[in-house]
Amino acid sequence: MNSRSFFTSLFEPRAIAFIGASTSPAKWGFNILHHLFRGGYEGPVYAVNAKGGDWFGRPMYRNLANAPGSADLAVIVVPKEKVADALRDCGAAGISAAVVITAGFGETGAPGQALEEEVLRVARACGIRMVGPNTMGIYSAYPRRVRAVMAVSQYQPGAVALISQSGNLGTSIADRLIRRGIGMSRLVSSGNEADLTVEDYLDYLETDDKTKVVCLYVEGVRQGGRFIETVRRVSAVKPVILLKGGIGAVGADAARSHTGALAGSFAVFSAVCRQANIIIAETIDEMVDIAGLLLSQPEIRGRRIGIVTQGGGLGVLAADLCEAAGLEIPPLSNRVVEMLDAYLPPFWSRRNPVDLVAPGRVSMITDSTAALLEHEDLDAVLLLGLGYMTCRATHWLDSPVLPREAMAEPAQKMIDGEKELVDLIVRQIRQFNKPIIPVIDIIGFDEPGDRNIVRKLDAKGIMAYSSPERAIRALAKAQTYYNRRQNGNSG
Amino acid sequence: MNSRSFFTSLFEPRAIAFIGASTSPAKWGFNILHHLFRGGYEGPVYAVNAKGGDWFGRPMYRNLANAPGSADLAVIVVPKEKVADALRDCGAAGISAAVVITAGFGETGAPGQALEEEVLRVARACGIRMVGPNTMGIYSAYPRRVRAVMAVSQYQPGAVALISQSGNLGTSIADRLIRRGIGMSRLVSSGNEADLTVEDYLDYLETDDKTKVVCLYVEGVRQGGRFIETVRRVSAVKPVILLKGGIGAVGADAARSHTGALAGSFAVFSAVCRQANIIIAETIDEMVDIAGLLLSQPEIRGRRIGIVTQGGGLGVLAADLCEAAGLEIPPLSNRVVEMLDAYLPPFWSRRNPVDLVAPGRVSMITDSTAALLEHEDLDAVLLLGLGYMTCRATHWLDSPVLPREAMAEPAQKMIDGEKELVDLIVRQIRQFNKPIIPVIDIIGFDEPGDRNIVRKLDAKGIMAYSSPERAIRALAKAQTYYNRRQNGNSG
Repeated sequence: MNSRSFFTSLFEPRAIAFIGASTSPAKWGFNILHHLFRGGYEGPVYAVNAKGGDWFGRPMYRNLANAPGSADLAVIVVPKEKVADALRDCGAAGISAAVVITAGFGETGAPGQALEEEVLRVARACGIRMVGPNTMGIYSAYPRRVRAVMAVSQYQPGAVALISQSGNLGTSIADRLIRRGIGMSRLVSSGNEADLTVEDYLDYLETDDKTKVVCLYVEGVRQGGRFIETVRRVSAVKPVILLKGGIGAVGADAARSHTGALAGSFAVFSAVCRQANIIIAETIDEMVDIAGLLLSQPEIRGRRIGIVTQGGGLGVLAADLCEAAGLEIPPLSNRVVEMLDAYLPPFWSRRNPVDLVAPGRVSMITDSTAALLEHEDLDAVLLLGLGYMTCRATHWLDSPVLPREAMAEPAQKMIDGEKELVDLIVRQIRQFNKPIIPVIDIIGFDEPGDRNIVRKLDAKGIMAYSSPERAIRALAKAQTYYNRRQNGNSG
Repeated sequence: MNSRSFFTSLFEPRAIAFIGASTSPAKWGFNILHHLFRGGYEGPVYAVNAKGGDWFGRPMYRNLANAPGSADLAVIVVPKEKVADALRDCGAAGISAAVVITAGFGETGAPGQALEEEVLRVARACGIRMVGPNTMGIYSAYPRRVRAVMAVSQYQPGAVALISQSGNLGTSIADRLIRRGIGMSRLVSSGNEADLTVEDYLDYLETDDKTKVVCLYVEGVRQGGRFIETVRRVSAVKPVILLKGGIGAVGADAARSHTGALAGSFAVFSAVCRQANIIIAETIDEMVDIAGLLLSQPEIRGRRIGIVTQGGGLGVLAADLCEAAGLEIPPLSNRVVEMLDAYLPPFWSRRNPVDLVAPGRVSMITDSTAALLEHEDLDAVLLLGLGYMTCRATHWLDSPVLPREAMAEPAQKMIDGEKELVDLIVRQIRQFNKPIIPVIDIIGFDEPGDRNIVRKLDAKGIMAYSSPERAIRALAKAQTYYNRRQNGNSG
């Protein structure tokens, strides 16, 4: 079987065999099976438990041969001594792809390593390709929502693929994607990589048309040259964001059991990654910030950033941060100043950052962003301090010291104003085909229900940020990626 | 009037005059007055509006002389041309402290600067000391909850004082404090600092027994020597966390209108701050992370950190980050390994980070933290990956594919187990008088209602972090502060 058809079995199974089903909530054989059902997988699931019985009304088969149909993918959670037998059963049943959740293999030392080699031999002999062992599982959004993972979170379909050499890091990253409304196409916890390695998954993702951005958590790679060549190829068509664990001496030591280091130092590794145009994220939050920006904004064509701010301090911090991140805050040209003079009050700052103080009308904000983007002077705009209108209106409506009937009309006007603002910003992003990156006051993230401006932007596919720092770091890394890609990666 | 009694009028007013009250929701004279009432100020508020009338059932006086009682503090929001007259009225009424919200002074250029000087002359002639002009306002939690601010947020009483040279940065920082359950003692947006400067507020905070930690946002100081001397004095008794705006050339230029730079470069400024034992925060989020750690954990006596993790990847990342931040992850001594051998399964990692994989019992976690802290080997513990028990239990209870009656008991056991874990951790922090810093999966932050483990920790006064990065950066900065203070600031 070639690897393309293997990946079809893995990510697009028509039916799944679940070997090691359990009714005990303390077991992975319960929880992962629950997540698979709960996740809405649309094909048949054949749950296998040596004792038979039922799983809350669904049949459990004593062995795979008893299942009423054939499966493409097996999820295996039996004790480690029984994994080889489970694989033999799968082979006999014509299954070609297995996710081996079971731990206790190479990561525990020499006897575990011997057992892992045995399991790999069996898998190869049976014509099965294997994820893991010691994996947190996989998720695949298309076409049938396979959620065969330890993590409890309900994933949303989307365009980010996530490959992680650590189960809990994969979970942490995925949970952050969910929280910011970013969907996933595929998730693989690659575990011990006895058979399939991170390079194999990258090969698949290169041409997976459901995947627009790839996120990687890597502690070490065994095939350094292949890793870099694969990422270079993928990066030429879609961005790859890497978070590297095991950079320091202690961390590398802690990571050692399941990896072989690519290079002696992170400095060397970083240099090689830069040549392959990999985007290196410093933190799990930054990885998500970058992914959201890449998915939600047009390509950033240069480093010249305009800042529009409601209040000076945020503008000052943003200018500092842009400069530190290698972005430019160019002075405003005369033609831009003239345009802004027509809209803004006489005391406006007349510099970049454009400080609107407390703008009296929504149009003051959008006229300013339009003025900055209309000519070729600037490549992107940071729009700082949104969200206060809705928060203020909510505060009026909920106030015990104000009569609600007196506040209903001005509050609705404020809420509608901010909704209009969101619509106009989204329209301008398309009109100018340049990024406008909204930074929302942190309390805006907590607004309940349909008053939440962050969710309004999410629904329109635009990522909002809770601080200028987070927006700017993501912007700078995305810009560098596009710049290198444009220049054939020589930049 | 000496400055101590002025600050009593400012932060502990027995009655407040509000000059420029308005019933129009578009005006600050409406919103700030609303926030003052909504904030629960317990003394009389005399609202003044030249036209008289009423503010939603409360009287508005045509002038201050008509008010039925005397006030200690005036909040002034009249147009800029009328501020001097308002101050004269306040002086005649015996008021000695004023918060001048009104903008349009020195920050707008030369004519505004002349007006600002005129206003200052009048204030001095009337014996009034002044916050602002061009300020977002003040908040004081004790004893009477003065919330005379533009920001809509409901602040909670607590031990952090916040002084900000920018209104919107002050708001951003305060909103983050609220979000993480950290209360404030005082907040001052210092505005143009025509009269009172950041150094004056620091003088007051040095001996304010309601304030345990000071947060500062500063763009520039006019009295560089006095600033450093004041902070050095305050830092010797309570930590001062500084976020500096205007570090870069463009940012400094944007900040210029209301500041004079302390030093030519941020490198020089940083060096001077280090000598004064100021904690420099890189971002607004980091400021809040550090403040929470300082308030919620015992003094950190050294750099040796133990890591206990549920899952390898978080431990690897945490070790990397500790190393990068100048903290040590020492190997475990034989006696600690022996203690842990008694509790943990045979395949445990036998190194620091201690990877518990998926601990079967709550006691495995707390026995491990106890083993690490019992001897003098380690100065603090990072406890990574909490929150999954409650999330899993919630997921069971809310699942449409599981019978609720079958899951009620195991779910309650999981929830109770995590509650017990929280209690034990808090008890150990007191028992060993060393920090145990909990890092909770990000989805734990979103759990509804009383299932939220983060809120449980908040209620017990322990700050939880959503990533190892955020916890470790805060820990490293707090440790450096304590170390320098112990060594008479020579470290």
